[in-house]
Amino acid sequence: MKTSRRSAVDPFIVMDVMEAARAAEDAGRHIIHMEVGQPGTGAPRGATDALARAMNEGPLGYTVALGLPALRARIARMYGEWYNVDLDPARVVITSGSSGGFILGFTALFDTGDRVAIGAPGYPSYRQILRALDLQAVDLPTAAANRYQPVPADFAEMDIAGLMVASPANPTGTMLDHAAMGALIDATHAKGASFISDEIYHGIEYEAKAVTALELTDEAYVINSFSKYFSMTGWRVGWMVVPQDHVRVVERLAQNMFICAPHAAQVAALAAMDCEDELQANMDVYRANRALMLEGLPKAGFTNIAPPDGAFYVYADVSDLTDDSRAFAAEILERAGVAVTPGLDFDPLRGRHTLRFSYARATADIAEGLERLKAFMNAR
Amino acid sequence: MKTSRRSAVDPFIVMDVMEAARAAEDAGRHIIHMEVGQPGTGAPRGATDALARAMNEGPLGYTVALGLPALRARIARMYGEWYNVDLDPARVVITSGSSGGFILGFTALFDTGDRVAIGAPGYPSYRQILRALDLQAVDLPTAAANRYQPVPADFAEMDIAGLMVASPANPTGTMLDHAAMGALIDATHAKGASFISDEIYHGIEYEAKAVTALELTDEAYVINSFSKYFSMTGWRVGWMVVPQDHVRVVERLAQNMFICAPHAAQVAALAAMDCEDELQANMDVYRANRALMLEGLPKAGFTNIAPPDGAFYVYADVSDLTDDSRAFAAEILERAGVAVTPGLDFDPLRGRHTLRFSYARATADIAEGLERLKAFMNAR
Repeated sequence: MKTSRRSAVDPFIVMDVMEAARAAEDAGRHIIHMEVGQPGTGAPRGATDALARAMNEGPLGYTVALGLPALRARIARMYGEWYNVDLDPARVVITSGSSGGFILGFTALFDTGDRVAIGAPGYPSYRQILRALDLQAVDLPTAAANRYQPVPADFAEMDIAGLMVASPANPTGTMLDHAAMGALIDATHAKGASFISDEIYHGIEYEAKAVTALELTDEAYVINSFSKYFSMTGWRVGWMVVPQDHVRVVERLAQNMFICAPHAAQVAALAAMDCEDELQANMDVYRANRALMLEGLPKAGFTNIAPPDGAFYVYADVSDLTDDSRAFAAEILERAGVAVTPGLDFDPLRGRHTLRFSYARATADIAEGLERLKAFMNAR
Repeated sequence: MKTSRRSAVDPFIVMDVMEAARAAEDAGRHIIHMEVGQPGTGAPRGATDALARAMNEGPLGYTVALGLPALRARIARMYGEWYNVDLDPARVVITSGSSGGFILGFTALFDTGDRVAIGAPGYPSYRQILRALDLQAVDLPTAAANRYQPVPADFAEMDIAGLMVASPANPTGTMLDHAAMGALIDATHAKGASFISDEIYHGIEYEAKAVTALELTDEAYVINSFSKYFSMTGWRVGWMVVPQDHVRVVERLAQNMFICAPHAAQVAALAAMDCEDELQANMDVYRANRALMLEGLPKAGFTNIAPPDGAFYVYADVSDLTDDSRAFAAEILERAGVAVTPGLDFDPLRGRHTLRFSYARATADIAEGLERLKAFMNAR
């Protein structure tokens, strides 16, 4: 038996880092994890309590494909509370994490060979999921001057079927404001292309509130998840908002491709939305960690960084320090005991000059990691 | 924004039945549900207890893409216990239900336009997932004489990239024995095509033990799930066994397309595998229900049925009663208060002459449903 061409997706380079970190830990070393893309916290207590009750009350069988009506309604209400957007719950589709949203969204919108533009640097799985679906990811190399977000000029001359943006972005943490998001939506629609907005880091923002594409248009796919702000990574539950006239198509795809998102996770997610105190306590940690990073990274010698607007990453230009971020990350792990992510996963062309530092873990770990980085760089 | 061609999948016809049943219930009528494809029971108590403990112990973050090592090892052990097959746990991939297995398996094996043969009647989502991935489902109209399972002659002249079988099958409950499964594997491999075995109903079998493709070859994808025998439909956790040299490819796809199967469901699934008493009590119910069906359906006038080897369905040829199974199912719902599934979902060509009766629910419901069917048919 042979494997398909479409299955030849790239490996995650960060996996090598994680494997090396695990080997170091197995050998007795203590490693600080600045490579991970998930909160160190679990689901809010109110979420797990709600699930414990539900498990005693009856079977958690299949839900309808679009998800629990109460959860769809609660999410729609959140758009009113967070963004002052009046959203019909019928447009909310519960998905198996944002991963499920990407698969459903790309399948609903694009046919084989279609070109879908994404900003580089960006979340590596965009590119790989597109490839697995036999679509063509088109990297838009973004400019530091544009805070690593695409602008209409980046794809003005391109034949594309869609544009996907992320705000706050991974790995940079930068956001699109109303004007920037609006310009991208207009330019995309002018081409007759589809606009997809990945809003998975909404809620984790530091200066201004993140803008949802739904403030500007109903003609977009918005993908979100309970993994980050709601601290429920392993639960695999997220949502997608689609135009009214796409709901039936997405429903049929979801029925066939997923049946439904995990019922238990949907129950927990609904309760998580009322756990504001615990979620804001998580935010206090991210804020403290961010302040430490913005002070500590330059002191350690990582001076080409920008304050992230959201998420829990700092993307550092290390072109003054190395031409090989992969080797550099390996060196940092080996000599400093800190695991960091080389930029190559996010930007295959330019990532050899960048590193991503995550500050999603406990503050004490972040402080210790920064001390180690400083000592390592001083000794270098 | 427009939707893609690949997203134009067929609606489930059973959804109309379910919607009509819900409307009847809302109007105060009592409906017996013989249309559903899931157990009426929930996850075993030991499974939910294990999850309740795990939720108190720490965050349920992402697992590695291939799934919890302990769960993969336990599944491999089960192949020894159930089939006397020595299976390397490294070949076991934990998936987001069998749905996740289909997406991963089809993506790993097939490229755009590839033709994949499936038996008709069969699980409708095979056809729709293939279409969503821009693959071509090729229906093999199976013969009643072959108990609605494909035989090598059905595809001898065809150019196909793969064959997918299901044993026990939905909607017929028929199984492939060693000889029949072996002949299909050989014929598929002789064409250089890939063999996929859907074994989701294994464990729910009445006369003989179901045969896994792994008893006959390592060169197959085997897809299974905790939804049926382990009674965990809504949890979205299953597994796939792949050839050793496909593990890395599937792992990369899984990392990108799913990140991981739901962690909570993996914890519950592992514990469910040690809940044999409760699972066998479920089997006692299915056995009693099956006996009622095999006695009651002919008495009601549904005489063209065969005893199912496994699963919890009876597929009835009703060509002596109707030329329009959809209208007939609507009439049964309206006049008898019993929801059943027209065969069109499973066999677009010949399903107008068939109905599927499910006996997955409580025995009292099955008995009441059979009484209603008999009264309805007598009055017809």
